[in-house]
Amino acid sequence: MKILVINGPNLNMLGSRDPNQYGNATLNSIEMSLIEAFSDIKFEFIQSNSEGEIINKIQSAPSYFDGLIINPGGYAHTSVAIRDALELCKIPKVEVHLSNLSARESFRQNLITASACDGYISGFKELGYSAAVYLIQGIVKNR
Amino acid sequence: MKILVINGPNLNMLGSRDPNQYGNATLNSIEMSLIEAFSDIKFEFIQSNSEGEIINKIQSAPSYFDGLIINPGGYAHTSVAIRDALELCKIPKVEVHLSNLSARESFRQNLITASACDGYISGFKELGYSAAVYLIQGIVKNR
Amino acid sequence: MKILVINGPNLNMLGSRDPNQYGNATLNSIEMSLIEAFSDIKFEFIQSNSEGEIINKIQSAPSYFDGLIINPGGYAHTSVAIRDALELCKIPKVEVHLSNLSARESFRQNLITASACDGYISGFKELGYSAAVYLIQGIVKNR
Amino acid sequence: MKILVINGPNLNMLGSRDPNQYGNATLNSIEMSLIEAFSDIKFEFIQSNSEGEIINKIQSAPSYFDGLIINPGGYAHTSVAIRDALELCKIPKVEVHLSNLSARESFRQNLITASACDGYISGFKELGYSAAVYLIQGIVKNR
Amino acid sequence: MKILVINGPNLNMLGSRDPNQYGNATLNSIEMSLIEAFSDIKFEFIQSNSEGEIINKIQSAPSYFDGLIINPGGYAHTSVAIRDALELCKIPKVEVHLSNLSARESFRQNLITASACDGYISGFKELGYSAAVYLIQGIVKNR
Amino acid sequence: MKILVINGPNLNMLGSRDPNQYGNATLNSIEMSLIEAFSDIKFEFIQSNSEGEIINKIQSAPSYFDGLIINPGGYAHTSVAIRDALELCKIPKVEVHLSNLSARESFRQNLITASACDGYISGFKELGYSAAVYLIQGIVKNR
Amino acid sequence: MKILVINGPNLNMLGSRDPNQYGNATLNSIEMSLIEAFSDIKFEFIQSNSEGEIINKIQSAPSYFDGLIINPGGYAHTSVAIRDALELCKIPKVEVHLSNLSARESFRQNLITASACDGYISGFKELGYSAAVYLIQGIVKNR
Amino acid sequence: MKILVINGPNLNMLGSRDPNQYGNATLNSIEMSLIEAFSDIKFEFIQSNSEGEIINKIQSAPSYFDGLIINPGGYAHTSVAIRDALELCKIPKVEVHLSNLSARESFRQNLITASACDGYISGFKELGYSAAVYLIQGIVKNR
Amino acid sequence: MKILVINGPNLNMLGSRDPNQYGNATLNSIEMSLIEAFSDIKFEFIQSNSEGEIINKIQSAPSYFDGLIINPGGYAHTSVAIRDALELCKIPKVEVHLSNLSARESFRQNLITASACDGYISGFKELGYSAAVYLIQGIVKNR
Amino acid sequence: MKILVINGPNLNMLGSRDPNQYGNATLNSIEMSLIEAFSDIKFEFIQSNSEGEIINKIQSAPSYFDGLIINPGGYAHTSVAIRDALELCKIPKVEVHLSNLSARESFRQNLITASACDGYISGFKELGYSAAVYLIQGIVKNR
Amino acid sequence: MKILVINGPNLNMLGSRDPNQYGNATLNSIEMSLIEAFSDIKFEFIQSNSEGEIINKIQSAPSYFDGLIINPGGYAHTSVAIRDALELCKIPKVEVHLSNLSARESFRQNLITASACDGYISGFKELGYSAAVYLIQGIVKNR
Amino acid sequence: MKILVINGPNLNMLGSRDPNQYGNATLNSIEMSLIEAFSDIKFEFIQSNSEGEIINKIQSAPSYFDGLIINPGGYAHTSVAIRDALELCKIPKVEVHLSNLSARESFRQNLITASACDGYISGFKELGYSAAVYLIQGIVKNR
Repeated sequence: MKILVINGPNLNMLGSRDPNQYGNATLNSIEMSLIEAFSDIKFEFIQSNSEGEIINKIQSAPSYFDGLIINPGGYAHTSVAIRDALELCKIPKVEVHLSNLSARESFRQNLITASACDGYISGFKELGYSAAVYLIQGIVKNR
Repeated sequence: MKILVINGPNLNMLGSRDPNQYGNATLNSIEMSLIEAFSDIKFEFIQSNSEGEIINKIQSAPSYFDGLIINPGGYAHTSVAIRDALELCKIPKVEVHLSNLSARESFRQNLITASACDGYISGFKELGYSAAVYLIQGIVKNR
Repeated sequence: MKILVINGPNLNMLGSRDPNQYGNATLNSIEMSLIEAFSDIKFEFIQSNSEGEIINKIQSAPSYFDGLIINPGGYAHTSVAIRDALELCKIPKVEVHLSNLSARESFRQNLITASACDGYISGFKELGYSAAVYLIQGIVKNR
Repeated sequence: MKILVINGPNLNMLGSRDPNQYGNATLNSIEMSLIEAFSDIKFEFIQSNSEGEIINKIQSAPSYFDGLIINPGGYAHTSVAIRDALELCKIPKVEVHLSNLSARESFRQNLITASACDGYISGFKELGYSAAVYLIQGIVKNR
Repeated sequence: MKILVINGPNLNMLGSRDPNQYGNATLNSIEMSLIEAFSDIKFEFIQSNSEGEIINKIQSAPSYFDGLIINPGGYAHTSVAIRDALELCKIPKVEVHLSNLSARESFRQNLITASACDGYISGFKELGYSAAVYLIQGIVKNR
Repeated sequence: MKILVINGPNLNMLGSRDPNQYGNATLNSIEMSLIEAFSDIKFEFIQSNSEGEIINKIQSAPSYFDGLIINPGGYAHTSVAIRDALELCKIPKVEVHLSNLSARESFRQNLITASACDGYISGFKELGYSAAVYLIQGIVKNR
Repeated sequence: MKILVINGPNLNMLGSRDPNQYGNATLNSIEMSLIEAFSDIKFEFIQSNSEGEIINKIQSAPSYFDGLIINPGGYAHTSVAIRDALELCKIPKVEVHLSNLSARESFRQNLITASACDGYISGFKELGYSAAVYLIQGIVKNR
Repeated sequence: MKILVINGPNLNMLGSRDPNQYGNATLNSIEMSLIEAFSDIKFEFIQSNSEGEIINKIQSAPSYFDGLIINPGGYAHTSVAIRDALELCKIPKVEVHLSNLSARESFRQNLITASACDGYISGFKELGYSAAVYLIQGIVKNR
Repeated sequence: MKILVINGPNLNMLGSRDPNQYGNATLNSIEMSLIEAFSDIKFEFIQSNSEGEIINKIQSAPSYFDGLIINPGGYAHTSVAIRDALELCKIPKVEVHLSNLSARESFRQNLITASACDGYISGFKELGYSAAVYLIQGIVKNR
Repeated sequence: MKILVINGPNLNMLGSRDPNQYGNATLNSIEMSLIEAFSDIKFEFIQSNSEGEIINKIQSAPSYFDGLIINPGGYAHTSVAIRDALELCKIPKVEVHLSNLSARESFRQNLITASACDGYISGFKELGYSAAVYLIQGIVKNR
Repeated sequence: MKILVINGPNLNMLGSRDPNQYGNATLNSIEMSLIEAFSDIKFEFIQSNSEGEIINKIQSAPSYFDGLIINPGGYAHTSVAIRDALELCKIPKVEVHLSNLSARESFRQNLITASACDGYISGFKELGYSAAVYLIQGIVKNR
Repeated sequence: MKILVINGPNLNMLGSRDPNQYGNATLNSIEMSLIEAFSDIKFEFIQSNSEGEIINKIQSAPSYFDGLIINPGGYAHTSVAIRDALELCKIPKVEVHLSNLSARESFRQNLITASACDGYISGFKELGYSAAVYLIQGIVKNR
């Protein structure tokens, strides 16, 4: 199985953000631990601060991958364009948020992109990514 | 490890609700498959339509369990009282919703209780419960 | 024909509430006059102040009754959980309100549960209940 | 007893509107079945697409009729002027809506005119009209 | 000087409406007392319940009159169309309301049409009309 | 092909309204230029300030015309009744606004009637009408 | 008859404010022309920028005056305290605004103080004051 | 004198909640200190997490008690049903909140039940209960 | 112990305001009964209609008093400035409202100043003041 | 004449999106049919998912083109930056939307960019583009 | 050059407010350091808790000063009256806030008075005042 | 000292935008005058229309610069992603807006990015940039 993991703006800075919200892991250590924990899955990891680049990547995903994990960062709350790209992308899709959005600022609780995914996970810090892989495995099996 | 799984109002009716939103599984079959998949965990399963009963159960959970999974059903959007009970309950807590709330009626997107849990999962139908167990295992290990 | 009539919180106090809004009848006299007026129908009357009890009763109604009349009292405006129970209950359902809600406080005009019934009647005091029976007879005949 | 039945804009088109919302009956067949069902009542039926004409008719109703049934169509949600005319009209008044407004677009849930009637019925398709006659009979008897 | 006085929906019913809000005068007595009080002014009085008729009259007013007094009744709060007609009508215009709108229901405080008049008077019952004439005299003199 | 062109309230006054918003053409000159530009189409032109008259005309349109162009003027933002009439009218329908509504007062940006048309054009002054004819030709050809 | 005229903050600056909104008159010339026009009335004129001073003056008005004219300036939209003082003051009260508030910024359309007066006049520049005197004469005569 | 003290959901957990908001006292110590401080009053203390049970207790209170003190916990902000029960209960009623609600989350500032009590006290932690007894004594004496 | 009691705008008029909301006592009689009831406390009583004067008094209070009771009248709902002054004043502070604000106009339910006090009491008419003294005694003792 | 046609995010995916909303044409077939239909016009076609790239292109347009057609896709509802770029671009500009926005999700009805164009067309699927060319021809001719 | 520096309510208390928001300087030390840093400018410093006094001072400023610096404290968010005074004052005006308002309570983000100044500075604690002087020098030079 | 100056979308067009809002300077002339005025500071100037590029630049700023000045243009009101990048950037940061945002369209008054800076300056046209340098010098000195 091949899974594309897209991380949006500022997630390359993980490790220096507030650990109460985002945990202590760096993006690199998260990626390493996924590779280790799921040895039978091929991952591609993308991090981009650019809305357009993220859309490009989502558009091409169905040709190369069996599942998509996306943490859209701040674009989760504002980007109708990413939402439309996700809607067009017909592979299993899981949105991940490191922090518990329901307990944060109100502008982080408006979920534009999540409504075009299968579902979303919020609040479990780095654990959210491996749970997302776990869920994509389950969705693929159930199809 | 011992985990308490609380299902709120109308979840005893699973199987007869809209399968596009809630999947095809009955509550019993969900419970059975958790027991099977996680043979080293002891589960207690509670379903109740009563807000007061759910609060009672949450209050007593820390004395008997290592983790709590809750699907508060309709109370997720209205119950300040369940939220306060969860905040007082200091074991790992995961809120599960079968359907993708961000894609449904606006009154289902106001999350009162989730802000007092570690985090929440929405949209993966019955898979959400096993992902919740998976996450509680991870939270306990990281502590 | 068998009809279940559920009255929610505080409707056991009818007769002592403001008669301009609620009329002069007691709950008992309303129930008696239904039995008298519709002698060919078997009624069961339930009054409960508990949201959970009302949900339990709605869930079991389809097995025993041909129609359901509900006055959810204050729960009409807040209970997503009762709404979900009604949606799952596939017999003819009529929601009754004694007072004209459109002429009262704004918090009484948000109708959560009514959207899961066939329809609703508001403002005709005790007459609303017999009109509800009249309507259930009509719905059953038209099916 | 004499009852005036006012149908507002587009109700002359019944039969060609979405039957899930409005039922299959034409306005003419609804009127015929009222005459048949309530042979001791004299009905006058008015349909108009004009707000002013409807107001004129409501203003003159008390001189000629014992009761008023009105389905204001789209004016129910916007017309302060019809609302004021109804408030001045001191005979029993029932507002009827064919569809269940609480389950439709938000702009159909703002009830301007209903607050100036005795009450309203929503969601029972053509049955709503005969229930309205039933209710006016009851109101007149109770006075 | 010639002044057109337009009264909108339900103002023909004055005298039977709540005197605390609308005073005791009938529309006819108001018109008579204007004629008497301002003997050098020619008045034309129009009352209509129809939005279209009111617009027609406003459109033709500048050709025949030196000033316009309008009480749009319920249309004051909803009619963009009357507002646009008033904006096109370049003679002095005074909007009159019998009751004090700032002390009534919120839907009566949204003033759509008044913003296209020179100004408005609210709360002085029948006195508002003669003050309106007084003001039009002043506006004409100051031009 | 036969096309009905309905112009709502105050559009008979074109030429005297603010030319920055509405252009310099009169309604008559707009109508003449359509006849000239589209010599193979038979036009009927209606202008009315009355909501009811407009509804009547829309209701009868499908029997006589192949397409409908409507500029509802101020009713575009308030009339649920015209919206319902348009929804029932199953010929190609184009709503035209002379001014760019997205750049004007907020009460002109709520589009009630446009959602029941095929689409709408806003901001191109008199050119909007010929573009509407151009579009109806296209829609008819594509059917 | 004795009338107190209270002008609130910044009205001492009249003459230098935007004449399209406020007219060309200074506060002094307005006061002079009232004295001249109504020679049988004794006026006291107060201007103050202080909310407390205005309240003090309103509280003492009933002991010395037969009527009160108030232009509360910016306090009209914010001062619950002036509103409460006006409610306690049981002589005829007219609120005057020079500009047409319904055509200005939204924060100028919230009328807190006007609801505690007999009524209000808005938009007629300096003419508003003499119309206010005219109205107080009428109110006193009708009592 | 006999006073009923009702504590709603989660108040049995006092002592383990955030002491900045709720103080250090347990519910039991609060009850003991009331008994000690007011030796001439008979208290009955009820704590329940169930909305229905609280309603039942309120309904029966007037037959047995001279006054009612209620801390509805989370139900204070959501329960129309408890509000209606309180409105029907015609003995002196004081609502108590331990924390200062005006300084907390916005969902804790909507007071549904308090409007049906004589008044409410918020922010004084355990002192609020003895002040409530003090107030009921005063209300009873003044009657 | 020395307590400062500040009464804001219009509270000098007590006795002539609606007794259903404000009780029958005058401000003077309230002050007298406090002196009588709490003979071991020295009171200073201030009443002012001026926001600035109230702020001045709050700022100097900590130097001379052990506690502060404030009824800010209409300023309670609008004054950020009084709120900031209270926040800087570090002695026990109780806000008192004579009427039950949760049952009144919505503009009286926005509590700006109360969030900077220890807590507030609303609805007990003149009893509220002595309960406030009772609470300050308790707060001081508990420190 | 030279026209620049900018298509925003996800419009490269046309043909695979819901044909009820977007029609069956691909972006390439739309472009081909424009070239064919308007043989005297030189077109440049741009599609980009990047907000910055679209702004760059708009900024340079006036130097090379006589008109601009833009379908900003999801950016139409969120991009103040594209709006500002359009405002600075002084050639004829038409915004095109394939679907009828007034009949879709509320977040698609907020038009940020359209207010900086001459006008906009919504709902006519691929026909919208040729109507846009038709309109630009008209605007250029009228200048 | 002569500059008037107005500080509104509670700014005389600087030094004892939360230093994270307001810095450590007292008002006096801020004033002293301005005098020192800008030795060629004559300053007048005013601090007042009274809205009326502040308005008086603003009104007289143009006669004596070349520029105005104002920190309106809590009045910045509520005072239409100060806003109107500033609008009438035609010398360079800079509004200063010590704390970063965009990061604080929502009621501190509504800027009523700033819109009538040349501009505003927020978040730089005592540095904001010297930057304001720097800006006024620049504005004067550029005129 | 080294300062990075980031200008967001459309600021490369300065000089051709409305000078009442944005002044007459071009971006180049602003940059030149900063270099001239602060000869001891090394500046790097960046202008970009791309959200992603701006984020990249902010992320790398702390390694190379002592302070950051940003005018995010239209992104100031929409970009949660830029806000998060600024929050992670721990050097002194000043947000500059040329126009007075509090006096413009409401969509320009929502400040998303400013809350993650030390503070912001709005309304002083090109002077805002040199004041920003002045402030960064002060912040650095005070550290």
